[in-house]
Amino acid sequence: MTTDHFQFKLLATDGKARRGEITMPRGAIRTPAFMPVGTGGTVKAMYMDQVSDLGADIILGNTYHLMLRPGAERVAKLGGLHEFARWPKPILTDSGGFQVMSLSALRKINEQGVTFQSHIDGSRHEMSPERSIEIQSLLDSDIQMQLDECVRLPASETDIERAMEMSLRWAERCKVAFGDQPGKAMFGIVQGGDIPKLRERSAKGLSGLDLKGYAVGGLAVGEPQEVMLDMLDVTCPLLPAEKPRYLMGVGTPDDMLKSVGRGIDMFDCVMPTRAGRHGLAFSRHGKINIKNARHAEDHRPLDEESSCPAARDYSRAYLHHLVRSNEILGMMLITWNNLSYYQDLMAGIRASIEAQRFEAFSTETQEAWARGDIPPLG
Amino acid sequence: MTTDHFQFKLLATDGKARRGEITMPRGAIRTPAFMPVGTGGTVKAMYMDQVSDLGADIILGNTYHLMLRPGAERVAKLGGLHEFARWPKPILTDSGGFQVMSLSALRKINEQGVTFQSHIDGSRHEMSPERSIEIQSLLDSDIQMQLDECVRLPASETDIERAMEMSLRWAERCKVAFGDQPGKAMFGIVQGGDIPKLRERSAKGLSGLDLKGYAVGGLAVGEPQEVMLDMLDVTCPLLPAEKPRYLMGVGTPDDMLKSVGRGIDMFDCVMPTRAGRHGLAFSRHGKINIKNARHAEDHRPLDEESSCPAARDYSRAYLHHLVRSNEILGMMLITWNNLSYYQDLMAGIRASIEAQRFEAFSTETQEAWARGDIPPLG
Repeated sequence: MTTDHFQFKLLATDGKARRGEITMPRGAIRTPAFMPVGTGGTVKAMYMDQVSDLGADIILGNTYHLMLRPGAERVAKLGGLHEFARWPKPILTDSGGFQVMSLSALRKINEQGVTFQSHIDGSRHEMSPERSIEIQSLLDSDIQMQLDECVRLPASETDIERAMEMSLRWAERCKVAFGDQPGKAMFGIVQGGDIPKLRERSAKGLSGLDLKGYAVGGLAVGEPQEVMLDMLDVTCPLLPAEKPRYLMGVGTPDDMLKSVGRGIDMFDCVMPTRAGRHGLAFSRHGKINIKNARHAEDHRPLDEESSCPAARDYSRAYLHHLVRSNEILGMMLITWNNLSYYQDLMAGIRASIEAQRFEAFSTETQEAWARGDIPPLG
Repeated sequence: MTTDHFQFKLLATDGKARRGEITMPRGAIRTPAFMPVGTGGTVKAMYMDQVSDLGADIILGNTYHLMLRPGAERVAKLGGLHEFARWPKPILTDSGGFQVMSLSALRKINEQGVTFQSHIDGSRHEMSPERSIEIQSLLDSDIQMQLDECVRLPASETDIERAMEMSLRWAERCKVAFGDQPGKAMFGIVQGGDIPKLRERSAKGLSGLDLKGYAVGGLAVGEPQEVMLDMLDVTCPLLPAEKPRYLMGVGTPDDMLKSVGRGIDMFDCVMPTRAGRHGLAFSRHGKINIKNARHAEDHRPLDEESSCPAARDYSRAYLHHLVRSNEILGMMLITWNNLSYYQDLMAGIRASIEAQRFEAFSTETQEAWARGDIPPLG
């Protein structure tokens, strides 16, 4: 279902877990949702048709990568990111801020914005809250993120507070820059590091801006999972219940399960695709390192019950061989398997919330992971 | 159509060009045929379903690579190469000799065979004519090649003659080792470098062995195209007309067109797959270097008339971006396009022979290549 404007509906709740649906002109997003990461206009090693067929309702594009190559103006000239990358469904873009901090050189940040050098060719670029939104609009992004400053943890309270307060001010500037774009949305980002009172202040400040959705940023940046979950416990109750909540850059299947249980609706992470390129498979049985010698002569598939051909139709021995030989097909297949598992997990989560058995589903899922992989062949 | 034994039928000829069909238990091979190269049990960056859908009736596997990794005995244990790699149609394997010469270290060759060190881990291996056939049988290869010694040109007549004579003796040993395998075939390989009288002696000697097919080897190893074609002019008339003829490791679309015109039925080459991983696209309009700046903002596909999604549905600008960014999808798409073009070219060749207009088809095809790519966007 599509609507001519951005809309979020809560369909069911189970404890703090929420089952919802975002509708917008390019399609509906069933939440909780996992968004595969399409950094530079491609979900690495996948055809877009495959990504869609797995059940992904939305993908993420990286503003930093796309502004540098091929360039936002060029993408606009070519009809926008959907047409360029052949993905007709919704796209969420990050603001570029996170990658400026983690990838670029010689970055300088002040109230006005960030200046930095491209990690590709050293060229100089400026990014202000306004320019970030302009780039995301040029990409024709459906859900755009405010520019924020994400402080890597551990950091001093002073640094975290300063960055959080500036991010709040940037949220206002982004809201103005975004203006009124029917059918699209701009989300704010809660910052505040690992300090509850700063998270609270950020969440309240952003809520006052009446944005269309709220992200929790600055987590999954090296802190223990417990800290991340504590911050969600502090933050989620302060965010408006009728707006979607997006936990940025998270995470492992376990992270997602626990975060849904704290009220998160959307996720993105490079983990399934990046791990897929290195032979690490996610499955109902937990993580499987297909490079391990135990798989070398194992004719069984990764998961015979999966609906994904990569998981169901190829022997572990073949996958093992491909990955050991650095064959591109190995990356294609394990990535496919991983994205399939991530989407299946989200579908299972959604169904369990509808059935008011999210807690039981969580427990069963975690127990299956803990039991581990099927026994090696005798 | 399949048959319970290996069979070759000439369906039509046009000048020296031949339209034929090999039938065997795993399927029919329409000739002239191009065999995509599946070096290590994968046609790089492709799903096997795609390779099949493009019209490939047979693929090639490399004995050298597969014997080293994952190992012939292991492949046999896993049900053979077809089951391992999920390719149910016929497979031709080379003997391993060519790659031993080009890839391995510390190789020593004598009448008995070759000893060499793996280029992967330095392990020592022996390869005799008998062991080569044994390995190919363990792989369950449908068309097996004799072990030969391929001399890199330029070389002295003495060296070429010695290698050719030994290859002839090895052909006999391979024939004995192959024995009677119903539904399968062992091909001999004509050697003799660039020396017509040696090519003649080799072709006649092999013909006397009454093998099921004949390859022309030791060409496309650095000599000018003219020399290769001259050797075909000498060799083909001496090979039995009722047996298939396979030109090993060839080649460019132009090489194939000219070789079909001299009586060749089968080809294999890494060119479409290797070039595809480096952004070089083959097309009706000749070669297209998608990295070229002229494509950066070109919304048009590589070839709107192609039936291959990679050629028809993706903009040149997107392909350009993917290849410039070293994205795996760029390799996947250009490889797909290239194999599609190679198969389309063979289909066109086959239809033209049936219609008794191969010469006209050749001229039209070469003229289209010569006209080059569509003009850049104004």
